[in-house]
Amino acid sequence: MNLDNNLLLRTLNHEQVERPPIWLMRQAGRILPQYRALRGSLSGFKELVSTPQLAAEVTIQPVDELNVDAAIIFSDILVIPEAMGLDYEMVEKVGPSFPTTIKSLAQVEKLESGDNAAERLDYVYEAVRATKKGLNNRVPLIGFSGAPWTLLAYMVEGGGSKTFSKAKKMLYQEPEWSHLLLSKITDTIIAYLQNKIAAGVDVVQIFDSWAGLLSPAQYKTFALPYIEKIAASVKRVPVITFAKGAHHAIPEISEFETDAIGLDWTIDAAVVKGFIGDKKILQGNLDPCQLYAKHKEIEKSTIELVEKFGSKHIVNLGHGVYPDTPLDGVKTFVNTIKNYTYPTN
Amino acid sequence: MNLDNNLLLRTLNHEQVERPPIWLMRQAGRILPQYRALRGSLSGFKELVSTPQLAAEVTIQPVDELNVDAAIIFSDILVIPEAMGLDYEMVEKVGPSFPTTIKSLAQVEKLESGDNAAERLDYVYEAVRATKKGLNNRVPLIGFSGAPWTLLAYMVEGGGSKTFSKAKKMLYQEPEWSHLLLSKITDTIIAYLQNKIAAGVDVVQIFDSWAGLLSPAQYKTFALPYIEKIAASVKRVPVITFAKGAHHAIPEISEFETDAIGLDWTIDAAVVKGFIGDKKILQGNLDPCQLYAKHKEIEKSTIELVEKFGSKHIVNLGHGVYPDTPLDGVKTFVNTIKNYTYPTN
Repeated sequence: MNLDNNLLLRTLNHEQVERPPIWLMRQAGRILPQYRALRGSLSGFKELVSTPQLAAEVTIQPVDELNVDAAIIFSDILVIPEAMGLDYEMVEKVGPSFPTTIKSLAQVEKLESGDNAAERLDYVYEAVRATKKGLNNRVPLIGFSGAPWTLLAYMVEGGGSKTFSKAKKMLYQEPEWSHLLLSKITDTIIAYLQNKIAAGVDVVQIFDSWAGLLSPAQYKTFALPYIEKIAASVKRVPVITFAKGAHHAIPEISEFETDAIGLDWTIDAAVVKGFIGDKKILQGNLDPCQLYAKHKEIEKSTIELVEKFGSKHIVNLGHGVYPDTPLDGVKTFVNTIKNYTYPTN
Repeated sequence: MNLDNNLLLRTLNHEQVERPPIWLMRQAGRILPQYRALRGSLSGFKELVSTPQLAAEVTIQPVDELNVDAAIIFSDILVIPEAMGLDYEMVEKVGPSFPTTIKSLAQVEKLESGDNAAERLDYVYEAVRATKKGLNNRVPLIGFSGAPWTLLAYMVEGGGSKTFSKAKKMLYQEPEWSHLLLSKITDTIIAYLQNKIAAGVDVVQIFDSWAGLLSPAQYKTFALPYIEKIAASVKRVPVITFAKGAHHAIPEISEFETDAIGLDWTIDAAVVKGFIGDKKILQGNLDPCQLYAKHKEIEKSTIELVEKFGSKHIVNLGHGVYPDTPLDGVKTFVNTIKNYTYPTN
C-alpha cells in the first residue's frame, strides 16, 4: 500500500515517527460548512449514510478542509442493528430512535446475524470503495463499528438515555438472552468488519460509547469477552478500541489483539501508562470543549497534550467533536500538531 | 445527641461497628407509594420542596417504610441558584429548566450570595427542624448541597445535558467570570450548610453530580479548590463528598477535611483503597440497576459489596435510586445489610 501520508499506519506499527498523527472523531459532520450545505439538500441523515457517493464525499471533506492524517468512513453504528432486522430512525435534534425495541427472547432469536446480516450492508462497502478511489492514496481510511454492548444498549433502550437503565435491566434480569443477543451482534460485527477490510479500509476502530455505564463486573461479563473476540478476528489491519468511560477495563483491553486504545478526556496519559506501560499506542484525548477556547489556549493545551503522551500517540479528542465547535478552533488543533516535531534525544 | 440508631455517626467516627449503615440517595421519592400519593395531590415538585411540613413528611417516609439508617432532607440542589436570584422550574418528565441562564459578567455580579442568599432558604431550615421533630431521634438526618461546579453547570446550561458543553465553554472562554461565579456559589453553600447544621442536620453530603464531565486539569482548577473550602468550613458534623465520575480526583479529595468519600458504581473499592488506603470512610456503590434483578441476585451482590469494602463503609447505591426500581428490590438490599454482621477476627 503506497499512501502519500502513512503516519497513522507507521505509528500503529510502533515505528519512530516525526510527529503524532491526528484525526478527529466526527470530523466528517456539522463542523464543516460543506457538510452542512450537502446535508441541507437531502431528505435526512439516513439518505447520506446509505448513498455511497454521498457518504464518500463527506468522508473526504475533512481531509480536504482540515488536512487531517486519516479519513474515517461516514456511517452510523446503528447500521448493524438495522442489518439484523431492527430498523432505526434518526430524529432531527433528538438522535436515533427505534420504533421497535428488543423485549423478548423470541425477538432476539428472530434477528439475522453474521454474514447474512452483514451482506445487507453493501452500501457501506461501496462507500468504502468510492472513498478509497476519491482519496487516491492521500491518507489511510478508518472503518468502524459500535461494540456489542453499545449496540445492545440502543436496541433495548430504543434511543439515547442518561442511564440506559432499560438495557442494563435486561442484563440483570435476562443474562441468557443478553448473551445470545451479544453473540449475534458480535458475529455480525466480525463479518461487517471483514467486508469493510476487503473493501479497502486500512484501520478499524471499535466504539464502545456506553462502556462507562456498566460496573466493572458487568463490563467484564457482558462487554469485554465480545470485544476480545472481535479484536482477535480482525486480521490484516490494525485495530483501535475505544471504551469510553470504562477506565477500569484498560488493563484488560491492553491484553487483547488491539493495536491502540482510545481514551476519553477524563483520564491522564500518565495514569494509563502506569497501568499498561508502553505496549499499546494510545489515542486521544483532548477535551472537546477545549476547542471553544481562544487560539493561544488551544495551542498551549495541544502542546501539553503531546508532551504528556510522549511518543506512541495518535492525537484525537476524547470524544466526537461537538457540532457547534468553531472551525477555527478545530484548525488550530490540527495545525498545531502538523507543525509539531518530536524532540530528538 | 442521643439517637436510637447512631450507626452512621459511629461509622463516620471510625468506630468499630457491628455492620455497615445503609441509606440510599433519592430514597425519599418515587420508589415509595406513599410519596407518589402525596406528590400526586400537589401542584408540583417545588410545592413539596418549599413546604416544610410536606418536605419533612417525605423525608421520614423511607425511614418508616425501608427502615434505613439515616434520613436525608427532601430538597433540591437547585434551591441555591434560586436563592442567588436565578429561578428554576421543574418540568415533569424533563427535569430542571432555567428560564434565564448566566451569559454575562454583569449577571454574575448581580447574583446574591453568602448569608444574604442563604437566608432566603428559611423553608429548608424549617423543614430540617420539622424533620428532626418527626424523626424523634430515631436516625440521623443528612443535609446536602450541590457542589459549585455542578450548580454552575445548571446555571449556565439552563437544564440537563449530556455534555454540558455550554457550561464547559464558559470555563474555557471566561475563566475569570467562572471563578467569580464559583466563589459566589461557594459562599452561599457555606452559609447554607451552616444554617442547616444550626437547624439540626447531623451529617452533610456534597453532591458534585457532573464532576465526571470535566478533565482532570479543569476539575483541579474549577472544582476541587471550592470543594476543599466548603469541606473545611463545615464544623461540628461529618462531611461526605461525592464527586460522581471523577475517579482521578479521589486522591486529592482524600486530603480534604471530608470524613467520607462517595463512590459511583464504576470503580471498585479495592482500586480506591489502593489510591488512598483506609484513611477515609467510603460510601457506595452498588449499581442502581442491580436492584432490578431477582431477590437472590440482589442478596448475593450486596454481600459481595460489603465483603469487597470491608469495614469503614457506608452502604449506598452508586447513584440515586432510579424511580422505576421495584420497592421489593430496594427492601432486599436494605434488609440484606440489616441482617449482616461483620465477621469477627
